[in-house]
Amino acid sequence: MPVGTQGTVKAVSPRELHELQARIILGNTYHLFVRPGLEVVRKLGGLHRFMGWNGPILTDSGGFQVFSLAKLRRIAEEGVYFQNHLDGTPCFIGPGTSMEIQHTLGSDIVMAFDECPPHPCSHEAASKSLDLTLRWEQRCLDWWAAQSDANKPLLFGIVQGSSHADLREKSAKALVAMGWDGYAVGGVSVGEPEPEMMAAVENAAPYLPENRPRYAMGLGTPPQMVEMVARGIDMFDCVLPTRIARNGTAFTATGSLNLKNARFTLDEAPLEEGCTCYACANFSRAYLRHLVKAEEILGLRLITLHNLHFYLSLMNKMRDALQAGTFAAFRREFVSSYRPHGEAVR
Amino acid sequence: MPVGTQGTVKAVSPRELHELQARIILGNTYHLFVRPGLEVVRKLGGLHRFMGWNGPILTDSGGFQVFSLAKLRRIAEEGVYFQNHLDGTPCFIGPGTSMEIQHTLGSDIVMAFDECPPHPCSHEAASKSLDLTLRWEQRCLDWWAAQSDANKPLLFGIVQGSSHADLREKSAKALVAMGWDGYAVGGVSVGEPEPEMMAAVENAAPYLPENRPRYAMGLGTPPQMVEMVARGIDMFDCVLPTRIARNGTAFTATGSLNLKNARFTLDEAPLEEGCTCYACANFSRAYLRHLVKAEEILGLRLITLHNLHFYLSLMNKMRDALQAGTFAAFRREFVSSYRPHGEAVR
Repeated sequence: MPVGTQGTVKAVSPRELHELQARIILGNTYHLFVRPGLEVVRKLGGLHRFMGWNGPILTDSGGFQVFSLAKLRRIAEEGVYFQNHLDGTPCFIGPGTSMEIQHTLGSDIVMAFDECPPHPCSHEAASKSLDLTLRWEQRCLDWWAAQSDANKPLLFGIVQGSSHADLREKSAKALVAMGWDGYAVGGVSVGEPEPEMMAAVENAAPYLPENRPRYAMGLGTPPQMVEMVARGIDMFDCVLPTRIARNGTAFTATGSLNLKNARFTLDEAPLEEGCTCYACANFSRAYLRHLVKAEEILGLRLITLHNLHFYLSLMNKMRDALQAGTFAAFRREFVSSYRPHGEAVR
Repeated sequence: MPVGTQGTVKAVSPRELHELQARIILGNTYHLFVRPGLEVVRKLGGLHRFMGWNGPILTDSGGFQVFSLAKLRRIAEEGVYFQNHLDGTPCFIGPGTSMEIQHTLGSDIVMAFDECPPHPCSHEAASKSLDLTLRWEQRCLDWWAAQSDANKPLLFGIVQGSSHADLREKSAKALVAMGWDGYAVGGVSVGEPEPEMMAAVENAAPYLPENRPRYAMGLGTPPQMVEMVARGIDMFDCVLPTRIARNGTAFTATGSLNLKNARFTLDEAPLEEGCTCYACANFSRAYLRHLVKAEEILGLRLITLHNLHFYLSLMNKMRDALQAGTFAAFRREFVSSYRPHGEAVR
């Protein structure tokens, strides 16, 4: 899912998202709650109409951003009191508020409101946090059960438990007992080493039903996604393709390219041979490097399109390989060709 | 002509330019000479192929930018010695160099190399400058006469003479005697009051042939363009539509809108009722205001598209009115409805 934090996937228009065949995007509850605020989105007919996107939207619960962006937090049984990061206005989000906000946004997939403990986190603290999260998650389900809407969104629970295997298992089992439309693994990509991140998924996935989507939140690099799919994950959201594009970096199947590198000055090749995205079909690395060096907006726009196309293609290729029964070979080949620290100089 | 200073119309893709029905764009010789440099553009097959634009390109001569951007200039008979504004590298551009650069870029309309005197400028200084410009312009024509290319571009001379009516007349007559494919009025919009700018055109236009395009360089606001057309001008280039879009300001037929204004917070209307551009067809003022406030790139992209559409539509409307013999009424109505300092609050 391309990430549309503030009501837009950064630098990309809805038409371009459709052309990229993005089937769903993510919106950030916390950011939209803070700006433009719910009254604006409600008056303008919900997030889909507001941002001109008629495809599905998954909204996060706001929990992660409250814990990563907001100031002066106080966690209570009923939710989190905080000052927003823009102007310090005192705010509150709890499980009920989060559901109300996501309902107002008109989300198609609503995420449960959870506490996202920092890394590292002791077993005692992680256990206490998990118990609170489970109570909040039940309150999210209860909130929706009390709604009479004909068109309820899908509801996803979030597995927490930090780096503790027994807590991840407990969390997953408790969520399955509650019954959700889909299951996310949260509290990953919060600064822990990659093996711990993989372990967090490995410790949860076996307990999650095979016939429901599984979603690893906030991930990841291309090889991380391949490894996560190998562990049973179906869905991802990640700011990397859009964020590093704005810094002049493009993804390819053999690693990333930093267009600021002088070796691209006269390079007539597209970002990636064979790529069918608008950037690769029409422009050379030399031109994109010029745009990046000259700080032209078109440069980051084109690299953003390429990177999103790369991520969405990678997911399509994995889906095809899974259906063809060739995923193991795909995984081996992809991970061995990918240079994590950039393409080798040819 | 939308302005593509550094090899891109700022924030706009070539596909979008075609959709806007832009028939020609402008490229800046000075900027492209300094970065990425001629070797890059030559190796990549010329400016059209480099930037992926297959429509016509008019290039300026570099003169104006040498006088407005570069440091430590020394003007000699053979041209101008300067340090470029990026890293201070010593450079030289004279009439021959300027023609060579524009030839390498692959320009479809080449502008003569001229000296652009500052405002204000005494009669004596303006006269001396004009004489130098006329010698340079003859050298530009001579340079092309010595080329054996089958596909020569069109060559436009530039009327100078500062605010002095007799010099504007002398300049125009001298250029017509030389014989150019088109005639530009330069040295306008350099800080002079609007009446002086109008006078500069009025003092040149009567001496320019009716069957050749007349081009007022670096203009202007919407009412200025209407007034210039009334004085016989056919072509303009202007950074205003793209520049003020990046500041959150949109043009409409009744004046400009500053989207940062709080009155747009809940405004469901498009930027301009009846406008057919992508921004107006799909997004509200409230959404665009949100994007501007949140500093999202999509905001300036959409306003840029609208503003370019507005400028190109205005030119189309004037052409239609001229052909229908209704230009006088169009001019009266447009100028009386347009609020130079923004649309009235409704």
